[in-house]
Amino acid sequence: MKIILDAMGGDNAPESVVKGAVRAKKELGVDIVLVGLEEKVKECLKAEGCGDIEVVNATEIITMNDDPSTATRRKKDSSMAVALKMLSNGEGDAVVSAGSTGALLTGATLTVKRIKGIRRAAMAPVLPAGEHGVMLIDCGANVECTEEYLLQFAYMGSFYAKKIMGCDNPRVGLLNVGTEPEKGGEMQHRVFELLKEAGEKGRINFIGNVEGTDVFSGRVDVVVTDGFTGNVLLKTTEGVIKYMMGALKGVFYKSTKNKLAAAVLKNDLKEMKKSMDVNEVGGTALVGISKPVIKAHGSSDERSIFAAIRQAVNFVNSGIIADITENIDHMRLKSEETL
Amino acid sequence: MKIILDAMGGDNAPESVVKGAVRAKKELGVDIVLVGLEEKVKECLKAEGCGDIEVVNATEIITMNDDPSTATRRKKDSSMAVALKMLSNGEGDAVVSAGSTGALLTGATLTVKRIKGIRRAAMAPVLPAGEHGVMLIDCGANVECTEEYLLQFAYMGSFYAKKIMGCDNPRVGLLNVGTEPEKGGEMQHRVFELLKEAGEKGRINFIGNVEGTDVFSGRVDVVVTDGFTGNVLLKTTEGVIKYMMGALKGVFYKSTKNKLAAAVLKNDLKEMKKSMDVNEVGGTALVGISKPVIKAHGSSDERSIFAAIRQAVNFVNSGIIADITENIDHMRLKSEETL
Repeated sequence: MKIILDAMGGDNAPESVVKGAVRAKKELGVDIVLVGLEEKVKECLKAEGCGDIEVVNATEIITMNDDPSTATRRKKDSSMAVALKMLSNGEGDAVVSAGSTGALLTGATLTVKRIKGIRRAAMAPVLPAGEHGVMLIDCGANVECTEEYLLQFAYMGSFYAKKIMGCDNPRVGLLNVGTEPEKGGEMQHRVFELLKEAGEKGRINFIGNVEGTDVFSGRVDVVVTDGFTGNVLLKTTEGVIKYMMGALKGVFYKSTKNKLAAAVLKNDLKEMKKSMDVNEVGGTALVGISKPVIKAHGSSDERSIFAAIRQAVNFVNSGIIADITENIDHMRLKSEETL
Repeated sequence: MKIILDAMGGDNAPESVVKGAVRAKKELGVDIVLVGLEEKVKECLKAEGCGDIEVVNATEIITMNDDPSTATRRKKDSSMAVALKMLSNGEGDAVVSAGSTGALLTGATLTVKRIKGIRRAAMAPVLPAGEHGVMLIDCGANVECTEEYLLQFAYMGSFYAKKIMGCDNPRVGLLNVGTEPEKGGEMQHRVFELLKEAGEKGRINFIGNVEGTDVFSGRVDVVVTDGFTGNVLLKTTEGVIKYMMGALKGVFYKSTKNKLAAAVLKNDLKEMKKSMDVNEVGGTALVGISKPVIKAHGSSDERSIFAAIRQAVNFVNSGIIADITENIDHMRLKSEETL
C-alpha cells in the first residue's frame, strides 16, 4: 500500500508532515510518497536521518489566501494538485493533506471524482466520544443540503462506522431539535421518513432524531446533518472544551494548595485532555470520493499526521468504497434520478 | 412590581416554585402571585412558613404530553394560561414559568401578543461565558427563519445585552461556518448585508460572522442565529460540559492519591461547575413578546426559579420593550412590509 502525502500542506509543513511520514513508514510498514518542494522535503528527510522515502517534486504551494474553488486548477503544479492527480492515476492508494480544506474538497471532487451516484462528498470527522468515537457527517462541505444528500450521508456514515470505527451495528441518528419525529422543519421531516424506511428495510440502524446533548452521551454512533449545522456543532465542541480547560487551569493555579493537588493529577488530566483531542483520532475523511482522501488538521504536528496516515491505511483496507458502490441504488431518490 | 408565577410548571412543581417565590419575595422585595391548584400551593406555602403570598386558583395543568400549539387554548383554566391572561390584563408585570416551552411560547404569542412589527418571538438564553454572559438568539422558537427574523433578533439581542446583561456596546455576531463575509449559504449572505448596514448606521455594533469556537471565546456578546442551529449549539454545549465533568470525575476517582488531591480542589471545582450552569444565569427570555415572559428550566429547583424571577425583575426594569418599539422601523424590511 502506498500513501501519498501533500508535504507542503498545513501550518507546520513540511517538517511535521515529514516527521509523521517517517514514523508511519516505520510503525505501520506502509510505503509513503511525499509530494512538494523536492529540495526542502529532502532536507527534512535528511534531518530525520531517513533517506528512503520517495519524493515527487511539485513547485507550487496552495496557501490559505488562494481561492479554494479554483486553487487546484490554477496551481496545477502545487503539492496538493499533484498528489490528487497521482491518486487519480493509480500511483498510490490514498491522499493525506493538511492543506486548505476547501481546495482539497474541490480538488478531490474534480480530479479524483465522486463515487458514481453520490451527489456530494461530505467532511466526516470522528469525535472522540464513547467506545468507538462518533462520526459527524457532514461538518462543512455542504452548507445547503437536499434530502438525498442527507440520505447518502447516513448510508456512507454507517459503512464508515462499521468498517473503520469498528461499530458492529452503527446507530445512525438524525440531528434535530428534539427526539420526536415531528420536530424540526420540512427538511428534517422528509429525511426522517427516508431514514426510517432505510431502517425498516434493515439497511441502516436508524435510531431516530438525536439532539446536541446526545452526541457525547454514548447513544449514537453516526450523526447525520447538513454541513452548516455540523460545522457549528463541531466548532462549538472545540470551543467549550477549550473554555473548560481554561477554567480548570484557573482552579489549579488559584492557590498553592491547589497547585500541589493539581500536580498529583497532572498526568491523568493530560491523558484525559488527549482523549478529547480530535487530532488524536486522525484527520477528517472526505467520504463519497472514489478513492480515500483524508484532511489532516491545519495545525497538525507529527502525531496528528501519523494519526491521519493510520486512518488512510484503515480506509484503504476497509472496502467501504465498494460498500457504497454496491448499495448506491438504495441511496438515490427516484424523483431526482429522473431529472 | 408584581411577578406572576406559574406554580404548576416544571418537574419539581409546585414545591420548588413556591420555595423560589418565597426567597424572591424576601431577597428582591417584589410582590409575587402564584397561579395553580390553590390547595396544593397553599400547603407548600404553609410548609415554608410563609402565608402572605397571593395565590390565584387554576384547576388545570399543562403537561409535557399536551400538544404545545393548542395547550393554552384547550386548557383555559391551566396555571400557565391563567398566568398569561393575567399578564395580558395588566394584573402583574411579568410571567415566569418552568412549564412546557412550546406551550408558553404559543400561549404568550396568542394571549400576550408580540410587540407590534415583530415577526416572531425568540427564545434567547444567556450562556455563562465571559464577563456578562453571551446571548444566543434564537435557540429553538423558530426552526425556519427569514432574513427579517434574524435582523430583528440582532436588534432585540443587542438591546437585551445592553440593558439587562450590562454590556456597554454589545458585540453582535452572525453565527456562520467561517468569519469571512462570503461564508455560509444565501440566507447568511443576505443577513450579513442587513446587519452590516445596521452597524454602519450605528444602530448595532455588528462585528461580522462568528463561529462555534467564538461563542465561548469572549469576543462576542450576542450570537444571532436561526432556532434550529441555536438549539443544536445550546444542547451541544450542555452535552460537552456534562461529558467533560464525567471525564473529570473519572480522573478524580482513579486512585487514592487522586481522590485526596480532588478533595483539596473540591470547593473550587464546585464553584467552577456552578459558573458554567445555565440555570444560574436565570431562565430563557421570550424576546419579542409585548410584556416580559421568562421560561425557567423544566428541571428548575428553588435556586433556578429564584434566578428566573430576578431576571424577570431586571427585564421589567430594563425598558427594552420600549427600545424595541421605538426602533421598530429600522427592524423591518420594506419589501416584506408591503406584503
